[in-house]
Amino acid sequence: MTKLLREGPCVYLSGGVGGAKLALGLSSVLDPSSLMIVANTGDDFEHLGLTICPDIDTLAYTLGGVANTDQGWGREDETDSFMSALADLGGETWFFLGDRDLATHIERSVRLASGETLTSITAGLCSRLGVRCQILPMSDDPVRTLVNTSSGLLEFQHYFVRDRCEPRVLGFRFMGAEQAEPNAHVLRALSDSTLRCVIIGPSNPYISIDPILALPGLMEALKDIKAPIIAVSPIISGRAIKGPTAKMMRELGLSVSVQQIVKHYEGLIDGIVVDTSDVSALDIIDKDSIEVRSMRTLMSNLEDRAELARSVLKFADYLSYKCTGALSVQE
Amino acid sequence: MTKLLREGPCVYLSGGVGGAKLALGLSSVLDPSSLMIVANTGDDFEHLGLTICPDIDTLAYTLGGVANTDQGWGREDETDSFMSALADLGGETWFFLGDRDLATHIERSVRLASGETLTSITAGLCSRLGVRCQILPMSDDPVRTLVNTSSGLLEFQHYFVRDRCEPRVLGFRFMGAEQAEPNAHVLRALSDSTLRCVIIGPSNPYISIDPILALPGLMEALKDIKAPIIAVSPIISGRAIKGPTAKMMRELGLSVSVQQIVKHYEGLIDGIVVDTSDVSALDIIDKDSIEVRSMRTLMSNLEDRAELARSVLKFADYLSYKCTGALSVQE
Repeated sequence: MTKLLREGPCVYLSGGVGGAKLALGLSSVLDPSSLMIVANTGDDFEHLGLTICPDIDTLAYTLGGVANTDQGWGREDETDSFMSALADLGGETWFFLGDRDLATHIERSVRLASGETLTSITAGLCSRLGVRCQILPMSDDPVRTLVNTSSGLLEFQHYFVRDRCEPRVLGFRFMGAEQAEPNAHVLRALSDSTLRCVIIGPSNPYISIDPILALPGLMEALKDIKAPIIAVSPIISGRAIKGPTAKMMRELGLSVSVQQIVKHYEGLIDGIVVDTSDVSALDIIDKDSIEVRSMRTLMSNLEDRAELARSVLKFADYLSYKCTGALSVQE
Repeated sequence: MTKLLREGPCVYLSGGVGGAKLALGLSSVLDPSSLMIVANTGDDFEHLGLTICPDIDTLAYTLGGVANTDQGWGREDETDSFMSALADLGGETWFFLGDRDLATHIERSVRLASGETLTSITAGLCSRLGVRCQILPMSDDPVRTLVNTSSGLLEFQHYFVRDRCEPRVLGFRFMGAEQAEPNAHVLRALSDSTLRCVIIGPSNPYISIDPILALPGLMEALKDIKAPIIAVSPIISGRAIKGPTAKMMRELGLSVSVQQIVKHYEGLIDGIVVDTSDVSALDIIDKDSIEVRSMRTLMSNLEDRAELARSVLKFADYLSYKCTGALSVQE
């Protein structure tokens, strides 16, 4: 057990599926009051008249124990009557919405229309699902990721789901980010002198983390903090576990490597967690500017998630001790 | 088989469940091009961000063969995952929305938001459900029935579903009716010189038919037509088959009787169809101003519906011949 002077919150920046796995690990080893999960909302979109927040929902369902862990999105024990009837009516069916999942989108949309903030709505959803730690949207203002592709500028879900990531990626734009205010709860946590650490999840840096970092003042707030900032690499042995990260990196002319992830977060992170299979990376990364730890980052079950969470936190506490002299005693 | 000079459309005014039963009967004995069903939209309401049109849907589901005939509303083979998840989230669940049914409301709401008319949307729904005759909303403009009750002024579905018709009825208001334009297709059919007849379904006169009649110019258009107008009594032996008609009539200080229905439509209808159990009514009704036919109006199965439809049409053709001299030959 670790006793900390920095016994404040751990702020965890997360995207969708990969991010949610480590979120579950962190929630299983941290007191709920010590974990603040910041969800990317750049993936959000308006569809069938509803506001859909895929990353928030994946986090909430995962931590609420109702996620469909096989497919990585949506709810377990789901039914598809709505979708089947919508297809019969000639409606838009490229984005699958399960019957249970639909309740989340409708309830959220009703509350947004009534003027409730996404933060408050998300808190309500989490409370109903029995999620005890905080899941916060990165902002209450809409930010929408656009993907510049060989087929033109696409809304993120059009690129991601409808077009199955097939168009070649040229770049990204985070519409609304410049005008959006970062979530005040997040800014407050980052300025908390007891902040334990900031962890960047093993999510896609370009579409899951960058929208968060694009919010005005957020990068500055992160650079101001004394607590360590650690990223968990989403790349293992030159491949992404899930999703289009590796394909995107190649299309952007980047090497699909841990080094590239480090380069992406250069000047921001104090430490990087790489997979044990990427030990070769340890030699290449400039260890004067950044600490590297190799761990088993592939998370197949809850014990994997908890183990990685414990190791990442231990790494953070080590960095905290080393960099800032904060007391971190392994009992 | 009857050969008619008036071989134009039969226009059928309908509310919900009772109206839909005879609509099914009429559709089973008439050529689809000869039946125009005009649906009350006073029951429509906005709920969970969706526009819901219960009477249109009951008609479309019934004629499309997908209605839940046991409960009288909604779809057969329905599932309730959405509703159950919405309840878990603390959402509004007083109005049951099945998973399949929800697709209708979402698709309709998406199309309304895109500027499509309710007439066009309803035609699309009917086409997808395989409904071959026309179902038309009484107007493309929103009309909303308000019920003045002992508990105050209530939106119709709040009175009807949420409060289970419990508050005492003092009167009705059809919000928006004065500004609404009657459906142009309906006005055109009514001015068609080949119009065969207008049939008012065995629906609640106060909440299903009166909203239609309240549309500007509709009453005048009906009074101008030469074709006969027939009402089918929703009252059998002093009772309503289903729904709150009888309770409403009592609360409004009216006798629950066929005579009262005749009085309600006085000056409008040329004939009334009463149930065989109401033959005593035949003596009381002033037969100089109106023709009366007694038939078995209770519709338990499809054959009942078709039989009543055939008898009503025969009655209409008789009136057509008698009143206007139009040729009606029983072959």
